[in-house]
Amino acid sequence: MMNEREMELMEFIERREYLRLRKELSEMNEVDVASFLQELPAEEAAIVFRMLPKDLASDVFAEFETSMQHHLVGVMTDKELYDVVNDLAVDDAVDMLEEMPAFVVQRVLKAADPAMRKTINLFMKYPEDSAGSIMTPEFIGLKANMTTGEAIEYIRKNGEDRETIYTCYVMDEKRVLIGVVSVRTLLVSKDDVLVSEIMDKNVISVVTETDQEEAANLLKKYDFMSLPVVDKENRLVGIITYDDAMDVIEEETTEDIERMGAVEPSETPYLKTPVSKLAKNRIVWLLVLMVADMISGGILERWQEAFAAMPILISFIPMLTDTGGNAGGQSSTLIIRSLAMKEIELSDWIKVWWKEVRVALVCGVILASINTVRIWIMYPGQIMVGITIGIAMICTVLMAKSVGGILPLIASKLHLDPAVMASPLITTIVDAGSLLIYLNTASALLHI
Amino acid sequence: MMNEREMELMEFIERREYLRLRKELSEMNEVDVASFLQELPAEEAAIVFRMLPKDLASDVFAEFETSMQHHLVGVMTDKELYDVVNDLAVDDAVDMLEEMPAFVVQRVLKAADPAMRKTINLFMKYPEDSAGSIMTPEFIGLKANMTTGEAIEYIRKNGEDRETIYTCYVMDEKRVLIGVVSVRTLLVSKDDVLVSEIMDKNVISVVTETDQEEAANLLKKYDFMSLPVVDKENRLVGIITYDDAMDVIEEETTEDIERMGAVEPSETPYLKTPVSKLAKNRIVWLLVLMVADMISGGILERWQEAFAAMPILISFIPMLTDTGGNAGGQSSTLIIRSLAMKEIELSDWIKVWWKEVRVALVCGVILASINTVRIWIMYPGQIMVGITIGIAMICTVLMAKSVGGILPLIASKLHLDPAVMASPLITTIVDAGSLLIYLNTASALLHI
Repeated sequence: MMNEREMELMEFIERREYLRLRKELSEMNEVDVASFLQELPAEEAAIVFRMLPKDLASDVFAEFETSMQHHLVGVMTDKELYDVVNDLAVDDAVDMLEEMPAFVVQRVLKAADPAMRKTINLFMKYPEDSAGSIMTPEFIGLKANMTTGEAIEYIRKNGEDRETIYTCYVMDEKRVLIGVVSVRTLLVSKDDVLVSEIMDKNVISVVTETDQEEAANLLKKYDFMSLPVVDKENRLVGIITYDDAMDVIEEETTEDIERMGAVEPSETPYLKTPVSKLAKNRIVWLLVLMVADMISGGILERWQEAFAAMPILISFIPMLTDTGGNAGGQSSTLIIRSLAMKEIELSDWIKVWWKEVRVALVCGVILASINTVRIWIMYPGQIMVGITIGIAMICTVLMAKSVGGILPLIASKLHLDPAVMASPLITTIVDAGSLLIYLNTASALLHI
Repeated sequence: MMNEREMELMEFIERREYLRLRKELSEMNEVDVASFLQELPAEEAAIVFRMLPKDLASDVFAEFETSMQHHLVGVMTDKELYDVVNDLAVDDAVDMLEEMPAFVVQRVLKAADPAMRKTINLFMKYPEDSAGSIMTPEFIGLKANMTTGEAIEYIRKNGEDRETIYTCYVMDEKRVLIGVVSVRTLLVSKDDVLVSEIMDKNVISVVTETDQEEAANLLKKYDFMSLPVVDKENRLVGIITYDDAMDVIEEETTEDIERMGAVEPSETPYLKTPVSKLAKNRIVWLLVLMVADMISGGILERWQEAFAAMPILISFIPMLTDTGGNAGGQSSTLIIRSLAMKEIELSDWIKVWWKEVRVALVCGVILASINTVRIWIMYPGQIMVGITIGIAMICTVLMAKSVGGILPLIASKLHLDPAVMASPLITTIVDAGSLLIYLNTASALLHI
């Protein structure tokens, strides 16, 4: 939906007041311009896009969704494409090309400067999800024997086309990373101080093969604005900026949430994902869990006679199994999130289990008491049924919280994604477990 | 668990090589020093903390967990406290004091400089979760009629104790925010250019009352390094830095995940939360859902005779209700996350519903076919039971995905947290719905 500002811009388009439109757009933030253009029909968007001033155009282009970029590459002239592509940050260009069909990649690479083309080709070779795949080569590199004054002068001359100038990296003559210094430190130091005197020699860096999530978490942990990426000889090849790191963290969190909801993660936004893809991402888990549910079905089938003898027992099944599922899901949710936030380690498993057991006892006893009293009131003369449900409830919650607390840790130990072990699978395991607990308790106490 | 580096540092402590220890710690990042000290017994940690060089000490202090800060305030002398407190960033100081008991707050405020004390007192008045509560007053403010050269000179003199110097805000004589300029733009401009010529006049800002989550999302949307916070007269009172914004986003995501797992969010890490608190955060939802499950129980009770007539029907209950719960949970997970990421708006509800219906048909038909064939093979002569289960399955998945897709949007429309409407509540609703579908289908087709 359009906001007021966008409605106003629409009117300029309708009245063909293009000069006025161009002026308004030039004053807006590129993020807002991109989101406005994406609201327009594709052809109109292309017309307006080509009106934008040159430097705004490439900033806006970098903000577009892939489908829009794809469309624009198709309608731009070679000259227009040249301007846009060579003004893009290398990481944005690589990001875009990774999603494009081969003939679009060809056209874009042809439009790029030889130097830009070489860098893009090099960067596209890093494996997906590696630190190399999200880094940019546009950083400020200083020499240790520069003075602060010289360093500032260097930044003033070369800062224009660097992704971030605020953290500068110091390299020796072989481009080996030997120090880091912030622009702030440079600015507040005297002009004649040597960079080597004020730089921090303990540089925290990653190699190009490091997992992008690990790199992003490192950057977040230290609140860095950028993180240097080195090759195996410790030569600086690029930096990861904080905004890209935050995107990685958000993406990984979304994947975790989707896995916890028994959905295969998708890279496209919900409304842009076709039905067939959405169905494919969900059917596998639905099938696996449905088959697993047959265990519960089998248990119920074997106890058919008990239900025939005491049909009232059937009506407590949803309450016991659902409470088990909910109790287990609560535990697994907390443990999975704590693992993702590095608040819990594998070695904490005894602490986790002991905490869950105590929480389960508290919750189980409360739930059981309420139920027993309720059954005692609602079903006069059936006090043994009430006691059966109470005992089954306590045991179910204990079992559910133990499974929910420990299963994600086991997954992590086995180098599986703990999120995959979350609520749905745990619900299914706990379902079968709670039925066994229920029916065996009933058999022992009610002699059926 | 300690890593190798920390083991080495431990050895220095055991051998009382304090000078060596101090030297090693001085070279480490404050985040690592803080996490090492938190591994030590409290008294030992206090001894080592007091050995740290002055400026490292306050950086490390800001990284500590509240319990550690509390302990240290108790053992530091007035002089030591003075040094640490007055060196803290205002937002870190406010953050800390918000969690402390009153007498600790008193002692810290007494130790602070009069100016610092005044600012802290002022900032502690902003409501929790507001932009005001996470901002810091330590920003670089420029005047429009300064030249670039003067501005850089001003930053070099005053940049030392500002939280971020990289985005500078331009104010008029009444401190009204009129522009923004990055240090990068200043540095790459000529010395004699006026700030007013290069500043961006379209400043995106929030007011002190803005919800902190909204402010953080704005900062993330535009990839800003800091976001200005103004009062009602548009006067600049503080800035929110990107690292604090990222913490807010992460915190809110954790709350969403916990609510989706039917747990009341807790502000303390799992292992530090007492059992009583953990139980309290979980029991309410367990109780609510247990009571809601009685609806399903009631439905089963009313159909006791049907089960007596055809006991085999019991064994398909877990499969149908769980598949419904899983299918609904998948939809609600995707919709809740998409809402949080602003990928979906309320007005998209018809699109969402229509997408879910089609996905449900695809998934439902696949699950139903597999089941009908399975029952046809495993229970010879019971083909009508197979068809009953098949039809019930398709209807259940349709109902579950409609509920899962629409309920979060309804919650959002009613200004409730969509995450609260997630899997557990949906499972319970879908459970009752799928039982009704199942039993009515069975009644119609099997004449029971």
